[in-house]
Amino acid sequence: MNEMLRLHRRHFLVGAGGTAIVGATGVSVPIAPAIAEDNDVAELPDYADWKDPTALIRYTGLTLETRRDAIGTGVVTPLDVFFIRNNLNPPGEAAVADPDAWEVEIEGVAEPRTLTVGELKRIGMDTVATIVQCSGNGRGFFDHEASGSPWLTGAAGCAVWTGVPVRDVVEELGGVVDAARFMTSTGGEEIPEEVERDEVIVERSVPLEAMENAILAWEMNGEPVPLAHGGPLRMVVPGYYGINNVKYVRRVAFTEAESTANIQVSGYRVRPVGESGAPDQPSMWEMKVKSWVTHPIMNNATGRVQIYGVAFGGTNPVERVDVSIDGGQTWEEARIIGPDLGRYAWRLFVLPAELEAGDYTITSRATDSEGNVQEETTEPNHRAYDYAGWDRLAVNVTVS
Amino acid sequence: MNEMLRLHRRHFLVGAGGTAIVGATGVSVPIAPAIAEDNDVAELPDYADWKDPTALIRYTGLTLETRRDAIGTGVVTPLDVFFIRNNLNPPGEAAVADPDAWEVEIEGVAEPRTLTVGELKRIGMDTVATIVQCSGNGRGFFDHEASGSPWLTGAAGCAVWTGVPVRDVVEELGGVVDAARFMTSTGGEEIPEEVERDEVIVERSVPLEAMENAILAWEMNGEPVPLAHGGPLRMVVPGYYGINNVKYVRRVAFTEAESTANIQVSGYRVRPVGESGAPDQPSMWEMKVKSWVTHPIMNNATGRVQIYGVAFGGTNPVERVDVSIDGGQTWEEARIIGPDLGRYAWRLFVLPAELEAGDYTITSRATDSEGNVQEETTEPNHRAYDYAGWDRLAVNVTVS
Repeated sequence: MNEMLRLHRRHFLVGAGGTAIVGATGVSVPIAPAIAEDNDVAELPDYADWKDPTALIRYTGLTLETRRDAIGTGVVTPLDVFFIRNNLNPPGEAAVADPDAWEVEIEGVAEPRTLTVGELKRIGMDTVATIVQCSGNGRGFFDHEASGSPWLTGAAGCAVWTGVPVRDVVEELGGVVDAARFMTSTGGEEIPEEVERDEVIVERSVPLEAMENAILAWEMNGEPVPLAHGGPLRMVVPGYYGINNVKYVRRVAFTEAESTANIQVSGYRVRPVGESGAPDQPSMWEMKVKSWVTHPIMNNATGRVQIYGVAFGGTNPVERVDVSIDGGQTWEEARIIGPDLGRYAWRLFVLPAELEAGDYTITSRATDSEGNVQEETTEPNHRAYDYAGWDRLAVNVTVS
Repeated sequence: MNEMLRLHRRHFLVGAGGTAIVGATGVSVPIAPAIAEDNDVAELPDYADWKDPTALIRYTGLTLETRRDAIGTGVVTPLDVFFIRNNLNPPGEAAVADPDAWEVEIEGVAEPRTLTVGELKRIGMDTVATIVQCSGNGRGFFDHEASGSPWLTGAAGCAVWTGVPVRDVVEELGGVVDAARFMTSTGGEEIPEEVERDEVIVERSVPLEAMENAILAWEMNGEPVPLAHGGPLRMVVPGYYGINNVKYVRRVAFTEAESTANIQVSGYRVRPVGESGAPDQPSMWEMKVKSWVTHPIMNNATGRVQIYGVAFGGTNPVERVDVSIDGGQTWEEARIIGPDLGRYAWRLFVLPAELEAGDYTITSRATDSEGNVQEETTEPNHRAYDYAGWDRLAVNVTVS
């Protein structure tokens, strides 16, 4: 826990909730409890072997987190550092060998049909930038034990998706049935025969209104969607937590009721610690306002530094970011920089600061266009979903 | 020249100025004269061996073009398909091993200094999206013989750069000297001893005003700038042709006169065919309004298709794109889609069209915010720079 990691390659490592010691001879950081120095999994899984291993914290073959400092400042998160969280094993590589042949059933419309990706490409096209964030991003900042990977900041990325607007597909098929209240998407992962479908299937319902901005995407950051990210076809629901962005989507149904899959009925529900999941608890749908510093310092000496990070408002644009170098006692407004990719993307922020030798607790606080301010702390919840408090998202830095 | 290439992997190949035959069994396209089916160079050069070879036309080890259909629709061109045009061999890999140690001399300011990239990172930070386009992009569309690679559409890409604004560096060093009229950047490539410096050195001057938007960039698309794209440090001059975006930048000088390097004095000048280059001819500085279709069709049958491509205004935002499927006799306004990354980035456009069996000449025409309209054809010039005519940027398609 107090071991030091030397700066390596291009990544300036920062402790999360830990202490970064910045000395004259280089940059050393201790490993926060939630980050194992040796990754839990030695190798990248086959389906993600093209990723940059130095940028990823590897919990399991299905859960790989982007290191806090590896997110870059290009607004769009590069594919080779983008996090992965799969609920089931992905389909085989054959699924992406001929992407246009992949089929998706559309149900709950006037004229239900099975369409190939090739056919979808003829119906319409749009491009949208969205943050994909795992519901459990930040789990490692909670004190209580909760199942799932102890994600810190890096189960989130901002991607540009191209596909057909779901509303165009619906229009092509005569509109949704009158009773429809939800859009339910089903993943194409293989389910072992001995397992009950609803127990494990990745099937998520979102309110019908979410359809307005949703796209069935075949491209991510200008490349065909990789298998690791749900290719050949992924349901993208801008502003909604990652789980609703169903990978390998095989079926989209406009339904009167929510899915009966466990992942919908009891999973991904915000509930008091110790309580069981149930349909009357809030579902992990829309994301909330959040920000964090990614690089608190740029060098190993005292003087001027540039503090920067990412901020977003969930389904609202982010309007303002404040930064504190004293753990939230005083704040200064940061400058929002770089291209604005739209309300569902994150913004970069930067604040120059003059740092003398000493200890600093650097953190950030975002405000969205509706006046929602990032919370100071996040109350415990059973599954430890979405820690967004600026208190523990802070980074402690010692400049010497 | 009439050989057919089968559709392979993810890339739908289109002939450029040639004829694409679209049949019931798949997509076949003839190879336009300027595209060799076998690339002139079999292998990617070492410094670019991480690129996607199927996305690139390889002329020489220093000139690799992005295939027209491989550009993607994510606005930001992925690094692994981004074109390369180097005037000299890049420095060795050692240059990017420790990017923060790279040094750049700043001259023509009140307090001239040599700064490391590590020091630059403390001075300031901004992120900007720009198109990088080689002056010779489109050379292959001209009829006359001209030296240089016969680029078609793919010596261009749109990237997001992060670095320090040049104006912040200048301010830090007390401002530019009074006499300064140009910003002159010098590349760090090695020059053989027996060669006269000015004969080959990559040194470019741009008007001083260009400094306002320029950045010294250490990051491209969220990754440290790769050696192939000018890392560890590149001068980025938004809206200006690629040559002015000097790679491996070693020196930035604010000068009274333009550089005496051949590349400035006589090179990159627009001049009548047969005439020698001279300083009184227009230099390849600001880019002009341009667009092209990247995917004229999405499938191999008649019916509705989505025609899409990219459009930009050089230093002005693009405001409108029209598409013609009859070689410019009639036009229909396309929809501009996707995130707007700012005035120096390109925009995506899309137009749905109903195509019956028959022959089509599909092209696009962009208009910028100042009312400048993409030209119908580009007059020959000695070095065959910047073909931007919508006539030859068209793609002929036969739907059967």
